[in-house]
Amino acid sequence: MNKKHQVVFSVIGLEHNHIYQMTKRMISAGAKLKSVFSDNTAEINHFLALYPKCYHCDINEILSDKEVELVLSAARPDQRAVIGIDCMLNEKDFLCAKPGILTLEELKRVKRVQYETKRFYSICYSERFWSGATLKAGELVTQGEIGAVVATTGLGPHCIDITKRPDWFFQTKYSGGIINDLACHQIDQFIFFTGAQDVSIIHSQVANKSHCHHSDFDDLGELILSSNGVLGTIRVDWLSPRALGVWGDSRLMIQGTKGYIELRKTIDLDGKSGGEHLFLVNHNGVQYYDCDVDQNEFFNAFFNDILNRLETSMTQKHCFYVAELAITSQMIANQNKP
Amino acid sequence: MNKKHQVVFSVIGLEHNHIYQMTKRMISAGAKLKSVFSDNTAEINHFLALYPKCYHCDINEILSDKEVELVLSAARPDQRAVIGIDCMLNEKDFLCAKPGILTLEELKRVKRVQYETKRFYSICYSERFWSGATLKAGELVTQGEIGAVVATTGLGPHCIDITKRPDWFFQTKYSGGIINDLACHQIDQFIFFTGAQDVSIIHSQVANKSHCHHSDFDDLGELILSSNGVLGTIRVDWLSPRALGVWGDSRLMIQGTKGYIELRKTIDLDGKSGGEHLFLVNHNGVQYYDCDVDQNEFFNAFFNDILNRLETSMTQKHCFYVAELAITSQMIANQNKP
Repeated sequence: MNKKHQVVFSVIGLEHNHIYQMTKRMISAGAKLKSVFSDNTAEINHFLALYPKCYHCDINEILSDKEVELVLSAARPDQRAVIGIDCMLNEKDFLCAKPGILTLEELKRVKRVQYETKRFYSICYSERFWSGATLKAGELVTQGEIGAVVATTGLGPHCIDITKRPDWFFQTKYSGGIINDLACHQIDQFIFFTGAQDVSIIHSQVANKSHCHHSDFDDLGELILSSNGVLGTIRVDWLSPRALGVWGDSRLMIQGTKGYIELRKTIDLDGKSGGEHLFLVNHNGVQYYDCDVDQNEFFNAFFNDILNRLETSMTQKHCFYVAELAITSQMIANQNKP
Repeated sequence: MNKKHQVVFSVIGLEHNHIYQMTKRMISAGAKLKSVFSDNTAEINHFLALYPKCYHCDINEILSDKEVELVLSAARPDQRAVIGIDCMLNEKDFLCAKPGILTLEELKRVKRVQYETKRFYSICYSERFWSGATLKAGELVTQGEIGAVVATTGLGPHCIDITKRPDWFFQTKYSGGIINDLACHQIDQFIFFTGAQDVSIIHSQVANKSHCHHSDFDDLGELILSSNGVLGTIRVDWLSPRALGVWGDSRLMIQGTKGYIELRKTIDLDGKSGGEHLFLVNHNGVQYYDCDVDQNEFFNAFFNDILNRLETSMTQKHCFYVAELAITSQMIANQNKP
């Protein structure tokens, strides 16, 4: 935590519960929450109960508040880019929940404004940023524990918990679609673990297998990426049974030339308690790492990036490349849909 | 076991240790071993020590032996089709280790002779046939425990144990290549679990990541199949560390509309002893099945198929379709190789 300077921030939009983690973690990194805007009464009441010193105000009051240097957002996904651009134009950094950008046109505008204003437009790829097992895997791969990464398999199944979803969730133009919404995490991780800079989309498809009463919704998304011969296979879905007891059995397998790593991020079907389980297999045999410790690495780094105008938490290039691949994959999948 | 009739069989070729399991299981199903041919002295000695009543003889003696109704073979892969055709033309059924057929030309000849003679040309897809967990998964899927299958992910990593491999193992024209040799199992399972009849090969690639001193060898194979919108993603390799202690951490994930199944066929990284672990996740939560019981289902059925001229163990159509997809995928991958 940097003690030389305070970072004051506001929140715009409470449409995804990631905003609660984001807010908590930003405060934990040293930032000071000032105000919040949302037109969702239930969420505003919940948020203000958690943060009674924070006050509810109009979006324009936040944008014109010179003290506010940073805005966090979980507005409806289709509104995030517009809000983020307004924030950057008003000299504020911006960090939103995923999906952060829904169209290539939005991406182009966001990139231009980011380049011109030099404010940050960051997207919270939480399945890495606050996943202890994923961060530990990053360390182990960097240390060469599995040799060179030759393939990754990312599985992001989710429980839909259908009664709690707003109407917009079932419409691609608002949600961004299942690949942009969910598989952006696995895209982020593919790039992170392989260092990929030139990714081809080998295949992308979406389907509605089990929610046919929602005609503009998809509950299955699959994606094959390739970079320099390294394949990243990705599957995400809204098909997990509620009886699983967690939001989804999120997995990542990282295959290297000398070994492999398996992450069981949320649950161990074998019965180990908690999440963030990491298994490393190499010349030393099988090693288990319990990574269920709170990780605030990204938010601490982002806090310092704001103060020092660096990109140590995540480069804009990485952030935008993930978004570009997610949007493009979603477009290809939409076109492929029967 | 059918008591009305004896099935006498011989063995031709001992180049893969699957032949020992195949022989044991065929005897267990009720068949009687008579003779064996191999030009591999060490293996012949080992085989005859296990089966002292069996005798070593020339290949032509087996082919002309009217008492022999069945030949099992683990000859060098490129010789299997020729031997199998000779067996069928000599009124014998044939069951070989995988890969059973290496080229589309061989496949065409095998199919024609099989059709004309009505003898069986069967290939032992052992990762299903003698995998208790895989057979149990078949039951659970048939019972509708996970709804309709919407995707499968098959991982077939292998320890190479390099000092024990003969020279031919490293040459694609003799071994068939990594996809034909290893991924045929996952192709078999994709078709088995999805009922796929019209499979497209979305992508196929091979690479030599860690054995560059063998210029005609690949240690990584990846394959994406699609049938009626259902994707089968497959990865096989020769990269597993010996310290794992088993031949490879073979996995199969079967995603359904109402749940999913994970098979850990050979090892549970979490520490459960043995192999053949099955996890079922559906509306009842997580259920574990220990499937480490000996399964001789395929061989019992094949024995009865020989007596009754039925195809209950595996249809010729399935057997040949798996081979066709494996050969074609291998060809595409060879062409894709940089």
